[in-house]
Amino acid sequence: MSSSVAIKPISNGTVPKDVLDEILRTGKLSAAFEKELFTLASEAKNRSYAPYSKFRVGAAVIATSGNIYLGGNVESASYGATRCAEQTAFQKAVSEGDRRFLAVGVATDTDAFISPCGICRQFMVEFGKGVIVYNFKPDGTFKRYLLSELLPDSFGPEDLDRPRGQ
Amino acid sequence: MSSSVAIKPISNGTVPKDVLDEILRTGKLSAAFEKELFTLASEAKNRSYAPYSKFRVGAAVIATSGNIYLGGNVESASYGATRCAEQTAFQKAVSEGDRRFLAVGVATDTDAFISPCGICRQFMVEFGKGVIVYNFKPDGTFKRYLLSELLPDSFGPEDLDRPRGQ
Amino acid sequence: MSSSVAIKPISNGTVPKDVLDEILRTGKLSAAFEKELFTLASEAKNRSYAPYSKFRVGAAVIATSGNIYLGGNVESASYGATRCAEQTAFQKAVSEGDRRFLAVGVATDTDAFISPCGICRQFMVEFGKGVIVYNFKPDGTFKRYLLSELLPDSFGPEDLDRPRGQ
Amino acid sequence: MSSSVAIKPISNGTVPKDVLDEILRTGKLSAAFEKELFTLASEAKNRSYAPYSKFRVGAAVIATSGNIYLGGNVESASYGATRCAEQTAFQKAVSEGDRRFLAVGVATDTDAFISPCGICRQFMVEFGKGVIVYNFKPDGTFKRYLLSELLPDSFGPEDLDRPRGQ
Repeated sequence: MSSSVAIKPISNGTVPKDVLDEILRTGKLSAAFEKELFTLASEAKNRSYAPYSKFRVGAAVIATSGNIYLGGNVESASYGATRCAEQTAFQKAVSEGDRRFLAVGVATDTDAFISPCGICRQFMVEFGKGVIVYNFKPDGTFKRYLLSELLPDSFGPEDLDRPRGQ
Repeated sequence: MSSSVAIKPISNGTVPKDVLDEILRTGKLSAAFEKELFTLASEAKNRSYAPYSKFRVGAAVIATSGNIYLGGNVESASYGATRCAEQTAFQKAVSEGDRRFLAVGVATDTDAFISPCGICRQFMVEFGKGVIVYNFKPDGTFKRYLLSELLPDSFGPEDLDRPRGQ
Repeated sequence: MSSSVAIKPISNGTVPKDVLDEILRTGKLSAAFEKELFTLASEAKNRSYAPYSKFRVGAAVIATSGNIYLGGNVESASYGATRCAEQTAFQKAVSEGDRRFLAVGVATDTDAFISPCGICRQFMVEFGKGVIVYNFKPDGTFKRYLLSELLPDSFGPEDLDRPRGQ
Repeated sequence: MSSSVAIKPISNGTVPKDVLDEILRTGKLSAAFEKELFTLASEAKNRSYAPYSKFRVGAAVIATSGNIYLGGNVESASYGATRCAEQTAFQKAVSEGDRRFLAVGVATDTDAFISPCGICRQFMVEFGKGVIVYNFKPDGTFKRYLLSELLPDSFGPEDLDRPRGQ
């Protein structure tokens, strides 16, 4: 073997600079980019491994850097080791150096607004309460929240630093 | 060895019948029993195993049967295997046959209203959205919620049963 | 409401003192007590909540104190919040003050020697590598291991204390 | 906004084709590529988020496709939501379509052979028992195992398919 493997920083896509600037300036996604996010989250579903629940979930997260990461749920025969789509997308992002996020879109095959589970809400809140969460139906309609609305009065990093009696 | 081990159904305590009847009738805890719940949750802290975070948490859950179960957080060197106090209390309860719950009290050593994490909110919502959650400060003051307020638009058993397109 | 709730330390049963002394002296279970452990683990199956996998598991753990704790698996619609039977039994034990364990028996409805999953092996090894693990078939036959055989070269509390470079 | 985001399949690197062919033919890594794997796993450490344990872990996994994925541990204030480096690397890989793996290297800052925890062993075994696991010390020396040696008599997908009595 001759040469060394080249290690590349990666993301599944990048938000066009003008679009990113607009999101950062307005604090929200344009209707056009919300459609993009739906497409991305739907595509992410194809990346799930869900042989037990047969419940495919896709998540697409947008970092403040403009990087986009897609993740699907990854199940395990020992159910407790199952990792949700949102976790996969965030773990990808964090392991590529992103720490702050603008929005995450979640898509399933179910004709209902399926919301991130509590584990995912907790996992995501570690990196900020202000991320915008989109729950997409297969037809592209959505419900939109701030993460802080989905996990009110959350437990987080700030709590571990508090002084303790006893 | 002569005789067989006697297997006993167990709980850490029982709500007095008149108190339980009042809770079931009014749908809430009396001020006097709220104090009891604080005592129970505080006692539960002594049952935690938290060598890594040093963040002791105690939880006391009241089942509709009147059974009371106490649990502390149980940490693991592999942090992901850590189990919170609320989970321990609920697992005890479920493994003794209880499935419906009236209220859960959570206590820590921190002078703040520490709320159940998202994992616990998800774990508890499996058994009903209406349980009353008390976050107790060490001085016994509390914030009170319905679980549905702490995990709005929750993901739950009903979602796995929905029909799916593809 | 008049009187305070009495908080009781609890276990699902107790190993007869002569049997416990023999186990502690010999370091292993008698054939007669192995049968008891099978009965206990089988009974624990009835305490499982497994609506998703329909895979009932029961676990019975014997602490060095002689206390016996039973647990079933407790599943969650968000699969990652699922807690296995062994975890439930150990969490019960730890939350009642036990920290050292002699043996754990695991039973399922499947005609095979079903072994604890890796999460459970990790969760249990926190409290010692020497616990004897029995995987029981429904007919009472078993395979027996030391936990250290099921999780060789384990990661544990000792690793977090090691000095680190960097 | 004009054009749509381009979604790219991604990996952190690719094993040179001649090296991959040799691994597939011989069933093991050459000494030269073992050094590469150490470099990759060490680089992956820089991608960890470990503010609580301060225990950085990096993992690099090689898929049978030749794709390489790097992951670091991602911790959470609610310790139970912590995801290990091996999980992150595998979730990245699975969410990019890889399902079979040749080898995984694990690196830490500790002068000891730190082994994957039981959760990770379980998470990885879902995709095959034959993956080669390298535990690297910071000096590049290693211990090498088959995953089946680290999780003997594992619980896995095959067990959920077994017929069950009642």
